[in-house]
Amino acid sequence: MGRVLNFYAGPSELPLSALEEAKGELLDWQGTGMSVMEISHRSKEFEAVHNETIALLKKLFFIPDNYTVLLLQGGASLQFAMIPMNLLAAGNAASYVVTGRFSNNAYKTAKKVAEVHLAATTEEEGKYFRLPKQDEIDILGSSVYCHLTSNNTIFGTQWKSFPDAGGVPLVCDMSSDILSRKVDWSPFGLVYAGAQKNLGPAGVTVVVIRKDLVEKSRGDLPDILSYKVMADKNSLYNTPGCFSIYMMHKVLKWVEGIGGLDAVEKRNERKAALLYDVIDETPTFFLSRVEKESRSSMNVTFNLTTEELEAKFVSDAKAEGIIGIKGHRSVGGIRVSIYNSHDEKDTETVASFMKRFIETNG
Amino acid sequence: MGRVLNFYAGPSELPLSALEEAKGELLDWQGTGMSVMEISHRSKEFEAVHNETIALLKKLFFIPDNYTVLLLQGGASLQFAMIPMNLLAAGNAASYVVTGRFSNNAYKTAKKVAEVHLAATTEEEGKYFRLPKQDEIDILGSSVYCHLTSNNTIFGTQWKSFPDAGGVPLVCDMSSDILSRKVDWSPFGLVYAGAQKNLGPAGVTVVVIRKDLVEKSRGDLPDILSYKVMADKNSLYNTPGCFSIYMMHKVLKWVEGIGGLDAVEKRNERKAALLYDVIDETPTFFLSRVEKESRSSMNVTFNLTTEELEAKFVSDAKAEGIIGIKGHRSVGGIRVSIYNSHDEKDTETVASFMKRFIETNG
Repeated sequence: MGRVLNFYAGPSELPLSALEEAKGELLDWQGTGMSVMEISHRSKEFEAVHNETIALLKKLFFIPDNYTVLLLQGGASLQFAMIPMNLLAAGNAASYVVTGRFSNNAYKTAKKVAEVHLAATTEEEGKYFRLPKQDEIDILGSSVYCHLTSNNTIFGTQWKSFPDAGGVPLVCDMSSDILSRKVDWSPFGLVYAGAQKNLGPAGVTVVVIRKDLVEKSRGDLPDILSYKVMADKNSLYNTPGCFSIYMMHKVLKWVEGIGGLDAVEKRNERKAALLYDVIDETPTFFLSRVEKESRSSMNVTFNLTTEELEAKFVSDAKAEGIIGIKGHRSVGGIRVSIYNSHDEKDTETVASFMKRFIETNG
Repeated sequence: MGRVLNFYAGPSELPLSALEEAKGELLDWQGTGMSVMEISHRSKEFEAVHNETIALLKKLFFIPDNYTVLLLQGGASLQFAMIPMNLLAAGNAASYVVTGRFSNNAYKTAKKVAEVHLAATTEEEGKYFRLPKQDEIDILGSSVYCHLTSNNTIFGTQWKSFPDAGGVPLVCDMSSDILSRKVDWSPFGLVYAGAQKNLGPAGVTVVVIRKDLVEKSRGDLPDILSYKVMADKNSLYNTPGCFSIYMMHKVLKWVEGIGGLDAVEKRNERKAALLYDVIDETPTFFLSRVEKESRSSMNVTFNLTTEELEAKFVSDAKAEGIIGIKGHRSVGGIRVSIYNSHDEKDTETVASFMKRFIETNG
């Protein structure tokens, strides 16, 4: 079997060039006579990759100089805890905008650690098919930060522009759309993302944090949970997920090679349009439950009229080498995840498959 | 350049067969048409590897059924925090035996979280070249656990038999000697280890915890820091370091293939003897600062009479393809790390190099 068309929601497809390079040097990396998995994280060779990965992300994502980039372990879920642990002292509050399962997890986790305020939720019967309007969001003015989730993988919603938080710094989980589009950094205090959608394999988590927040973060935490310690040690306090960082470096080099963020953003818009156009042309066959202005460019979700038809859609797709499109178990239906690494040709293949599926099953 | 003889203290050498297999299937794993890095952690294929990894470790390390094996992220350093956070409630105490830099880190981290008692330390002027005798260890009888570090990579000491804690469960950092020898599990409440010495690449941390301690652990923690949640979710609460787990599976299969723990232990004893014999035959040239009964079978440390001679030793070794033997910056000298994956032939090469080095420099 050759390579399939892999539309998993994450971990998901990686650029083929990144995998091929890794394969070529898996037993002898850069003439060291070792795999990158076997070399000390304190070696000059590994430190160079680590530092270049940070520098590349800063450059490609236009991260201003007053932010620090950390490469941590534990996934976005560990950040759900580290954010309030680091940024909130006794008596401090934070606001949370809940628009999906992971932003709800972030909110519930913060509640275990500190005082937090629910600024908005778009939950209806356990589902989140839209984002709140500005006037639905009630951010506590005394908040140290306001947390939100940029893109919701399960439901397929994405903030096209971020809400005005009235000067309260935004803390944003960008796990599923980081580096997919240009971002105005000015409202953000902290942005974080597990790598396994747009940046590389699982095992590394990016935290971009404004330097003044690092300085103000709590000093009484275990070192490994402290932004300040991690920033002071350039994220090499302990052994990191070396191989994941090395792969992230290759993914970022690939992003640079295809033209950087501008090219990536345009390509992502074209890819999303390919699929949403089919949905909008046949709205009684492909049922979109997501409010139009909240639609995600990363995860295109829809239902078919019956579960049987959805199962047939998934199995017919599989027969054509299209994999990983079954919707999340909590919502069912179909989800096609089209992250940075997915090319237009493969997305066209899905769009064309959708059209042919109507012809034979419509 | 071919493969070097890699004696880094960790990350360190992996079995060549594990790397070769990974290389062969990096673009298409098990006929899935994807890399293992690209497949969902909820796929049946990945879950099978995850579960087999846990089952193999249980089998090879003879872990009794009343223990649960967790595969986490964050390294041993995160366990320094999670252990007291999970196991100590208000008013509870724990005892710590400090015998090196990492056990001191574990102690200092626990002090930030809870009441802890220093049961013993063998620190002398910042160095730790011996382990405490039984009568030097003062374990608080009311301790929920007593923490110690099985093997100290920096100084090269290792408990040959563990101290009697009078019924207090031992919590043990085995990062640098897990699965290197048989263990009597009865005194242990919890054993943990970063993978990057004996189990695989960095990015996965093993926690073996007695089930009654999981049940008794605190329920008010963020999910990601809770042993109970991680145990209930079979360590798949969130996306794990998938590739590191996959590589750990290959390393465990390799251990099984060379005869399991009994074979590994005997091989490790023979390897250590090869190097310590040279040291003991020429004790005025190769200076061992470690008390004989505390010597590690994993990290063989020694000094030469001058720093210049040590530098020459390192560079002459490098010319023969022997890499990673410079001592930790805090102690200097030489450190040869001979973990499970190092074979006897390569260790003999080092022993023979040491003998030849005396002839030309002695």
